[in-house]
Amino acid sequence: MPVSPLAPKSFPEMPAVAGARLATRACGVKYKDRTDVCLFAFDPGTTVAGVFTKSKTASAPVEWCRRALKGKKARAIIVNAGNANAFTGRAGKKSVDRVVDGVAGALDCPKGQVFAASTGVIGEPLPDQTITNALKALAGDLKGDGWDGAAQAIMTTDTFPKGATRSALIGEQEVTLNGIAKGSGMIAPDMATMLSFLATDAKLPAPLLQRLLEDAIGRSFNCITVDGDTSTSDTVLIAATGQARHPKLSADTKLGDPRLKAFRAALTDLLMDLAHQVVRDGEGAQKFVTIDVAGAASKNAARKIGLAIANSPLVKTAIAGEDPNWGRIVMAVGKAGEKADRDRLAISIGGVEVARRGEVVPGYDEAPVARHMKGQDIAIAVDVGVGRGRARVWTCGLTHGYIDINADYRS
Amino acid sequence: MPVSPLAPKSFPEMPAVAGARLATRACGVKYKDRTDVCLFAFDPGTTVAGVFTKSKTASAPVEWCRRALKGKKARAIIVNAGNANAFTGRAGKKSVDRVVDGVAGALDCPKGQVFAASTGVIGEPLPDQTITNALKALAGDLKGDGWDGAAQAIMTTDTFPKGATRSALIGEQEVTLNGIAKGSGMIAPDMATMLSFLATDAKLPAPLLQRLLEDAIGRSFNCITVDGDTSTSDTVLIAATGQARHPKLSADTKLGDPRLKAFRAALTDLLMDLAHQVVRDGEGAQKFVTIDVAGAASKNAARKIGLAIANSPLVKTAIAGEDPNWGRIVMAVGKAGEKADRDRLAISIGGVEVARRGEVVPGYDEAPVARHMKGQDIAIAVDVGVGRGRARVWTCGLTHGYIDINADYRS
Repeated sequence: MPVSPLAPKSFPEMPAVAGARLATRACGVKYKDRTDVCLFAFDPGTTVAGVFTKSKTASAPVEWCRRALKGKKARAIIVNAGNANAFTGRAGKKSVDRVVDGVAGALDCPKGQVFAASTGVIGEPLPDQTITNALKALAGDLKGDGWDGAAQAIMTTDTFPKGATRSALIGEQEVTLNGIAKGSGMIAPDMATMLSFLATDAKLPAPLLQRLLEDAIGRSFNCITVDGDTSTSDTVLIAATGQARHPKLSADTKLGDPRLKAFRAALTDLLMDLAHQVVRDGEGAQKFVTIDVAGAASKNAARKIGLAIANSPLVKTAIAGEDPNWGRIVMAVGKAGEKADRDRLAISIGGVEVARRGEVVPGYDEAPVARHMKGQDIAIAVDVGVGRGRARVWTCGLTHGYIDINADYRS
Repeated sequence: MPVSPLAPKSFPEMPAVAGARLATRACGVKYKDRTDVCLFAFDPGTTVAGVFTKSKTASAPVEWCRRALKGKKARAIIVNAGNANAFTGRAGKKSVDRVVDGVAGALDCPKGQVFAASTGVIGEPLPDQTITNALKALAGDLKGDGWDGAAQAIMTTDTFPKGATRSALIGEQEVTLNGIAKGSGMIAPDMATMLSFLATDAKLPAPLLQRLLEDAIGRSFNCITVDGDTSTSDTVLIAATGQARHPKLSADTKLGDPRLKAFRAALTDLLMDLAHQVVRDGEGAQKFVTIDVAGAASKNAARKIGLAIANSPLVKTAIAGEDPNWGRIVMAVGKAGEKADRDRLAISIGGVEVARRGEVVPGYDEAPVARHMKGQDIAIAVDVGVGRGRARVWTCGLTHGYIDINADYRS
């Protein structure tokens, strides 16, 4: 599979995060001749937060993580690609148990502080021995760098590894934030169907970390869509090793607290970066599309309208075909089920006003809009004319490439 | 565009309906060298019922019809293809007004009893003069047969005309039911994005006719989907001329009344036939897919789960690729948002049980399932294991043909 034309030029330089180490290995879970398992290890005292798929058919590792999260501490995350261990019944549960048990043994840590994630085909038993056999070697290979290798090891239909790093001040102490992600199809809130793992050396109580994560995801991963399909396995985990020497923050610190401002912005920005990379690797994607919705009844209504546009096969095929077919945007606004005033609706494409007050602008000249549609970055803005709710969502076009990948490949 | 491989072998023989006449004409609204306008005329005393799109950006003719329906009587329906007169602001409203005014003049009937429907491109002003100029000629051409011609005249991206006829006894009197439909993309409840016009010689008060229509649509047009997109223009109208000599039925007759049993069955069957024809003409469709959902919390929950499966791009591409990728069905059940028990979920494809109690069946043999996937008619059955709600929905695969049609053609 060729690398997406929308891929970033290179993988970012990612520094080590104090207290976090990682290792990867080619275990042959499904793929041959590539790394497919990644182990993260964290020093004692590391707090953790997580957000998972809302699917009613969530995978066995997701169920495990949900329970483990209650302990608020993480010593390890074990991830494999090639098999989702989803819809695998009792056998799937036992597989998770054996894998996390193995990790706890190899790292000499409590089993309840080991998290697991699996991505790949649904419904096939996880050959967990391929993983457990490798745990000792993985534990021996752990080191502070190698985030690029980790991003590689968790890929499935991805055409490029996805990573991002940020730093921020808490008090006068600089902290580091690293994150990797995978995902290119089955991408829709909640969550944007993917795996993402983050580590920071910040010292943050788990409940605060959880609120920070949920807030940032609401503005990043939950605002992207590739195909409107939601995975059984979506998992985002953030581990905070607490090795940075900034003043303590209590668990009930408000998100608006000025001491958190820079960290919160960095976390949101990092997740937004990863989310955009997922869209840029959307299966068959040729165009990166930003959709701004204004004038909605609420922020949530705006997001729903944005996602209705972003998920519409007719809008997405028009984008792929470079056709400024704004009538389909009108259609998608109409089907979103949220309040909209047809006779006040305004639409811009590429900054050019196409329609206002419910009809095409007088003397509409399609030429500049058609030119914009030929570019790689498409901007659609809609004002639905009923309130002050705003949202921004991102998606890609629906192309022959998407059909090729999904009609021919059992992912 | 070649005729869909799923098309019926021929257009049915459709008898005249006493009190209903029709005519078509090539007016050049947008297309050249084909009929594109259809006029239905009904004798005085004809009652009418209608169901329309739930889009918040409904077209001008839809708004007109909603108001006209309050009068409960119909003398005419005027339909054009090539331009939807949607999102055309005040100009669109005036166009409808001029067209229905013209029809009322040509047929010498009250304007409020003239219904209108338009289908085609959104956002372009309707060149209504091309229609009004032809009304006198259309009125002169009215006759009782020619339903096939009417089905032709209302087509847009359709590759074959869609018609169906049924008869039923009310008391000892046989009544006739004729219907035509168009639609092949932008097909999703509510309504399945399309136009459909029906006429019967039954004598039914408008409120009863309305309840009968809504009931039948709930089991037909609202159970099909091609792409999950909802049109601005969906319109189903049924006219009952009342020329059949069966005993009168009062407006508050219950739908379960034995005197209505045969008529209700015939109407549902006719609408189901038309709905299936729409799916069989789904843009790019190569497979006709029936999805049965059982064990849901309610009938409505079952329908929602069925539509989540039917609208999933990943399920639809797997069907197009003849890949028995049942993991994607699990995913779609999970994302539907309705109650489902992962560990009781059962899935069959082509009558072969693939999974039960939340995992693949022991010794699963994919060969017969793969064979079934190569056929033209695909059957998927799911039991979600929580209740007794059932529903059946229909869809088609998502193919390169869909992309071709919608990336290249401004419909």
